[in-house]
Amino acid sequence: MRETFHGELTRLREQLVAMCALAAQAMQQASQALLTADLGLAEQVISGDTALDQARGNCEANAHSLLALQAPVAGDLRSILAAVYSAEKIERMGDLAAHVADTARFSHPNHAVPADLEDPFAELGRIAAGMADRLGELIDQPGVEGYAELNETDHAVDALHAQVLATITGSGWPHGVRSATSLALLARFYERFADQTVSVARRLDFATTGEIPT
Amino acid sequence: MRETFHGELTRLREQLVAMCALAAQAMQQASQALLTADLGLAEQVISGDTALDQARGNCEANAHSLLALQAPVAGDLRSILAAVYSAEKIERMGDLAAHVADTARFSHPNHAVPADLEDPFAELGRIAAGMADRLGELIDQPGVEGYAELNETDHAVDALHAQVLATITGSGWPHGVRSATSLALLARFYERFADQTVSVARRLDFATTGEIPT
Repeated sequence: MRETFHGELTRLREQLVAMCALAAQAMQQASQALLTADLGLAEQVISGDTALDQARGNCEANAHSLLALQAPVAGDLRSILAAVYSAEKIERMGDLAAHVADTARFSHPNHAVPADLEDPFAELGRIAAGMADRLGELIDQPGVEGYAELNETDHAVDALHAQVLATITGSGWPHGVRSATSLALLARFYERFADQTVSVARRLDFATTGEIPT
Repeated sequence: MRETFHGELTRLREQLVAMCALAAQAMQQASQALLTADLGLAEQVISGDTALDQARGNCEANAHSLLALQAPVAGDLRSILAAVYSAEKIERMGDLAAHVADTARFSHPNHAVPADLEDPFAELGRIAAGMADRLGELIDQPGVEGYAELNETDHAVDALHAQVLATITGSGWPHGVRSATSLALLARFYERFADQTVSVARRLDFATTGEIPT
C-alpha cells in the first residue's frame, strides 16, 4: 500500500512537472507572439490553454482518489494538498500566458508593445517562463526548498513591472492612452504569473518542512 | 465520529461564511474610501486584510485536521477540499479589496476616480460586495446551487468593466495617461474579485452534486 501510494504521489508530481513545462512554453510563446505580432502563434497559445485546464482536472481527480483511498497523514497529506494547490496555480499561469497572447491577438496587425518597451517586456517574458521551468525542477526534486530563490527572482519581475509603469505614466509618453492601459494590464499579467510560481514554491516548502516559510 | 465530523464541517463552513462577510465589508469600505478619498478608511481596509489571511490559515489547518483524523470520502471529502479552495479564493478577494483601497491611498488627497466614472465604480463596488455576501449565504446553505446565479451577476460586472475601459480608452479622455492606467487596473481588481466568487460557487456546486457545473 505504501509502495503504491508513493508511486501515485510520484505520478502526481510528474503531472505537475508537465504542467509547469506547458505553462513555461505558453509564456515563452505568448511573449514571442507579443513581440513579433505573430497572430498564428498567439492563437496557438490561446487554444492550447485547454491542455492545462484538463491537466489540472486530472491532477485534482488523482489527488482526490489518493485522499479517499489512502487516507494519508502528516507529510504525505501535506504533499497531496500542495499538489492540488499547485495544479490550480499552474493552471492560472496558463490563463495569464493566454491573456498575454490575447493582447497580441487584439493588437494585430499592430505591435502591442512599442519599440522603446520591447526590452523590458522581452525580459519579463524570459524571466517568467524561466520561473515556471524552475518551478518544475523544484517539484521534481522534493525536499529542495525553492521559495527563497523564486522570491528573489520575483524581485526582478517587480522591478521590471515598476519600470514599465513608470515609463507609461511618465510625462512625454507618446503612444496614447489606449496603448498605456493595455501595457499596464499586460505588465500585470507577467507580474501575476511570477507571483503564482512564488506561491507554489512556498507551498512546496511547507509540504517538505511543515513550516510556512517567511 | 460522524456526529463530530459533521459538527466540524459545520464549523469550517461558519469560518468561510465569516470570511465572506469580511471580504464583502472590505470591498464595500474600499469602494467608499475610493469614491470619497477617505485615507483613514483606505488604511483601515489595507491593515484589516491580515484578518482574512489569518482566517484562511485557520480554515486550512482545520481542513487538514479533518482530512488526517477522519479520512472522509465522497461528498464529505469534496466538501473539505471545496472549503480549502474557497478559503484561498476568499483570501484573494480580500487582497483585491486592499488593492482598491491602496489605489485610494495612493491618489490621496486627490480622488482616484474622476466624477464622470463615479457611477460605474460605485456600481462595481456595490455588486462586488453583494456577490461576496451572497456567496456567504450559499456557503451557509449547503445544497443550494449558486453558480448559475453568481455567473449571471458576473455578466453585469463584466459589462461595467468593459464600459470603464471603453471610456478611458475612447477619444476625448481628458484625465491623462496616469489616471487611465490606474483606472484600468482598478476596474480589473473589481472584475477579478467578482470572478473569485463565481469560482467558489462553481466549486460548491461540485461539492454538492459531484458534477462540475458548465
